[in-house]
Amino acid sequence: MNRASDVRNPLQRLSALLARLPGIGEKTAMRLGLSLVRADPEYVQALAEAIGSIHAQLRFCSVCCDLCADEVCERCRDPKRDRSTICVISQPQDRMAIDRAGVFHGLYHVLHGVLDPLSGIGPAELRIEELLRRIAAGEVHEAIVATSPNVEGDATALYLAKLLRPLGVRVTRIASGLAVGGELEYADMNTLQRALADRRAL
Amino acid sequence: MNRASDVRNPLQRLSALLARLPGIGEKTAMRLGLSLVRADPEYVQALAEAIGSIHAQLRFCSVCCDLCADEVCERCRDPKRDRSTICVISQPQDRMAIDRAGVFHGLYHVLHGVLDPLSGIGPAELRIEELLRRIAAGEVHEAIVATSPNVEGDATALYLAKLLRPLGVRVTRIASGLAVGGELEYADMNTLQRALADRRAL
Repeated sequence: MNRASDVRNPLQRLSALLARLPGIGEKTAMRLGLSLVRADPEYVQALAEAIGSIHAQLRFCSVCCDLCADEVCERCRDPKRDRSTICVISQPQDRMAIDRAGVFHGLYHVLHGVLDPLSGIGPAELRIEELLRRIAAGEVHEAIVATSPNVEGDATALYLAKLLRPLGVRVTRIASGLAVGGELEYADMNTLQRALADRRAL
Repeated sequence: MNRASDVRNPLQRLSALLARLPGIGEKTAMRLGLSLVRADPEYVQALAEAIGSIHAQLRFCSVCCDLCADEVCERCRDPKRDRSTICVISQPQDRMAIDRAGVFHGLYHVLHGVLDPLSGIGPAELRIEELLRRIAAGEVHEAIVATSPNVEGDATALYLAKLLRPLGVRVTRIASGLAVGGELEYADMNTLQRALADRRAL
């Protein structure tokens, strides 16, 4: 109703900007805006600074294409990491999830997406060229394709396997099946089909 | 694991700051941080600017204590509003909700909280002094107490009624009962009790 007159209001303006973030609706945006009004000024300035400088401070690692502050990210610089294994992932969050699992000590390669022809994302939109260059350098023995086990992720994995195998590298795919700790009764049909098909000898 | 080394990372720093907002967990914060990395630079700068300047730009209306950009808010300045009725609310969001309903044309008064002795919030922490001053000025005939119908909101309403009635002002309370469009079957016990007790003649 008085929307037009409210645009001048700094709180309305802030919450309209916050509402453009993914998963933040109008009400949540207003709640966040009000919490910023009430928050410690030092924190609010630090947040504004961190947001304002994020584009200037972040770039893509020239090796693995992950987001980082330097020319080469800390993982790619780490001499303790196994350089013969590359885990290919679609986005930076996936690297964090795998790091949290704490069992992978090789290097990563971030594609920044998966093949999705319907959304106009083909091989040229992904960081595949960079991956081929790394593999061609000869140090890599295995590429673990860890895209999500859905239609686009599986298609991307198959595409990469076709591309990488001729380069003499072993291409593997992360396993799919029932979640550990989950109940078989509640597993969805597709997962159960995959879990049965990929059964292994005990 | 590599948390300590990640603090240098601007993305980790940004998402740690975002995670301090209410209702934003670590994963959501990282998702928001990454969405800012990918967002239009113009938008990101506007957001940083809006956050950074919110404290400097906002103040409390000297009449109704609502948050606004000026000395007196647009509602209190609006000559078309009915100055004889004041709707007393606990927070700015409640004013927005009532505005959306589009049936109230009087003025507001924002308490910025409700009485909550367990959290150390007594009358001195709320904008009650300012409300008394407005009422004492003599223009107000009715104060509608529209705090939420829970323990603290009801207690605040009773407290205000005691305080305001001697000033010769009519004090009313917004109605409680079944939500319009809701199902009686699913109403909670307390609401149903209130709906029965407050039944009105047809």
